[in-house]
Amino acid sequence: MAKINDNYLKLQGSYLFSTIGKKVREYEAANPDKKIIRLGIGDVTQPLVPAVIEALHKAVDEMGIAESFKGYAPDLGYAFLREVIAQKDFKDRGCSIEADEIFVSDGAKCDCGNIQEIFGLDNKIAVCDPVYPVYVDSNVMAGRTGVFDEAAGQFKDVVYMPCTSENAFVPELPKEKADLIYLCFPNNPTGAVIKKSELQNWVDYANKNGAVILYDAAYEAFIEEDDVPHSIFECKGAETCAIEFRSFSKTAGFTGLRLGFTVIPKALKLDGVSVHDLWARRHGTKYNGAPYIVQRAGEAVYSDEGRKQIKEQIAKYKVNAKIIAEGLKEAGYEFSGGINAPYIWLKTPGNMSSWDFFDLLLDKANVVGTPGVGFGPHGEHYFRLTAFGSKANTEEAMRRIKLL
Amino acid sequence: MAKINDNYLKLQGSYLFSTIGKKVREYEAANPDKKIIRLGIGDVTQPLVPAVIEALHKAVDEMGIAESFKGYAPDLGYAFLREVIAQKDFKDRGCSIEADEIFVSDGAKCDCGNIQEIFGLDNKIAVCDPVYPVYVDSNVMAGRTGVFDEAAGQFKDVVYMPCTSENAFVPELPKEKADLIYLCFPNNPTGAVIKKSELQNWVDYANKNGAVILYDAAYEAFIEEDDVPHSIFECKGAETCAIEFRSFSKTAGFTGLRLGFTVIPKALKLDGVSVHDLWARRHGTKYNGAPYIVQRAGEAVYSDEGRKQIKEQIAKYKVNAKIIAEGLKEAGYEFSGGINAPYIWLKTPGNMSSWDFFDLLLDKANVVGTPGVGFGPHGEHYFRLTAFGSKANTEEAMRRIKLL
Repeated sequence: MAKINDNYLKLQGSYLFSTIGKKVREYEAANPDKKIIRLGIGDVTQPLVPAVIEALHKAVDEMGIAESFKGYAPDLGYAFLREVIAQKDFKDRGCSIEADEIFVSDGAKCDCGNIQEIFGLDNKIAVCDPVYPVYVDSNVMAGRTGVFDEAAGQFKDVVYMPCTSENAFVPELPKEKADLIYLCFPNNPTGAVIKKSELQNWVDYANKNGAVILYDAAYEAFIEEDDVPHSIFECKGAETCAIEFRSFSKTAGFTGLRLGFTVIPKALKLDGVSVHDLWARRHGTKYNGAPYIVQRAGEAVYSDEGRKQIKEQIAKYKVNAKIIAEGLKEAGYEFSGGINAPYIWLKTPGNMSSWDFFDLLLDKANVVGTPGVGFGPHGEHYFRLTAFGSKANTEEAMRRIKLL
Repeated sequence: MAKINDNYLKLQGSYLFSTIGKKVREYEAANPDKKIIRLGIGDVTQPLVPAVIEALHKAVDEMGIAESFKGYAPDLGYAFLREVIAQKDFKDRGCSIEADEIFVSDGAKCDCGNIQEIFGLDNKIAVCDPVYPVYVDSNVMAGRTGVFDEAAGQFKDVVYMPCTSENAFVPELPKEKADLIYLCFPNNPTGAVIKKSELQNWVDYANKNGAVILYDAAYEAFIEEDDVPHSIFECKGAETCAIEFRSFSKTAGFTGLRLGFTVIPKALKLDGVSVHDLWARRHGTKYNGAPYIVQRAGEAVYSDEGRKQIKEQIAKYKVNAKIIAEGLKEAGYEFSGGINAPYIWLKTPGNMSSWDFFDLLLDKANVVGTPGVGFGPHGEHYFRLTAFGSKANTEEAMRRIKLL
């Protein structure tokens, strides 16, 4: 008789953003006259930039003509895209990453969720707390964790690394043994960043202990300060211990277009086996490449025109981050983030629980944010706001929050 | 210390089509003057139909304007697409499948590869032999099989169901216990189809034994005979034992656009747990939806204009299938398929091995096909040709094959 994967039964509730979506839909149904402002899920609101739109139209036209029609894409991505990524995101920053170390995909969420497959079930994972739920949930599903400990609010057999205001939301090196270490900087949900010298400590630790760092750099485009690394491969020795995830979602507003990539250096080997080859095999067997038209859109992001346009787009989101920061300051909230990241991480007033604050904000201000505890127990009493709304909505949301 | 998933080391060689690609590239490099015709990998060659191109341009324009811009798609697909699929592919054929039982994805290969995740590692899988490699390889990677038995040419702890000319390439019900049964009709690679009454036997068997049928109907659009079911849900009781995979790749030439869907009825439960809910959770955690513009392209396939155009496109591929069939007949080959399917399955001449015939065809006729043994040991001495080339290329390939 067929049996389910009962690791799925260990998962808690539904995926955080599905729960939020449900709560909001229910509130909307009960209050059809209220104008809700969403500063919750990290979705962008600005349209695709003209250079991208133009590239899409051009590629669509190619698909309509036999001579230029494209069938299956190369599993690992078109050379035109992998080469421009290697040059502009890595070589231009002094990182020696080659085009064939880049795996183009339909987004960093998929890659972050799927990467654990190529590692054995007996690896111990380490994650920040709070943390983007996908890292933990994908490992729970695979059976790489124990059951959920209700009292602790955490899964057993996972190393949680607390990120609190005391350590400026940058975790200490784990004291317990950890094999696969998930790091995300600029951080989701806290908006914190890590300095290059601090990240170098992690790389050294991983190389010394034979650990692999799974480095999520999806928010890299928001970095504006000089001593903040854009890639883990800016650190010495990262090519033997790190995998990096990148996304076009927040860089260029591709959340609805789906494009990302993963960097696995050929020098990364475990017990003599190339991790790069395992991921190539996984892609070849279970994936069929990102759409040609979307890869052309990704290429346009790197053109001079495209770069200029997405820079302007990100600048607009940063104005929103400033509006949120100033509003919170005026209203007397404690918060961090929002400088090299699109996320603002605030302390709930009066030690209110994250979900109580969610309900309060939805009910009294008609503003949707993300409860910090949804990202882990150390996110309790915190709350995430994003800078991805429109300017008018962000201003209106802050006006309402100040009135609370 | 981090460890790899050593199930990957059980995999044999590289993925079949990667190996073929490599052989062809090497031959091309050594013989730059030869004009190679590809009738190997099942990739289409005709451009996207005008209705699809129009829908893509329209959707691209929407993405360039703030008011109509779309960010993250619903994880499970846009309602506009799920509803038209439910109506036209299922309800119109008398299958009671609802829109919320349809999960839109970036293609059937991904879904076929990922579906095993939601089932326990202790399930025994049954596959046809020969078989599309993804079903077996994805289970090898997960650790649901034993090691590869060199002598048998098969993985241990897998139930292989021989498909031979004796059973018209439709397997017998398995005598051994099997929990997850992969079936594909119209079949890749043999081009065989199953009659509705025969498929009903499988559904009855699965319901009786608590097995789940993973039914790959990617080639459904090629069915032209009346007693051949387009969906397993045409069979009574399939909603409690079957999952169906569909693809836009061969239906509408979307191999480079990436769109497919999986149908999981809500009535399918294992030990009281809804399989539909598990897959929804998987999608919510590890997937972020197919691109909006591609889902609009999928919708256009179901418009009156779109349907007419893709029907004409498939008719052209069927002309190629006839050209291949007639050519093989003239040249004295034994073969089957090519009527309700884009694949022709031929017996190699003089009991030649599949790879020897591959090399001969590449070397002497500069035609690329797929060695039958690449799909399993019962594919040895067979060879797959596809009808997806251009008419001129198909004619030229058959002219050359006849000269062998």
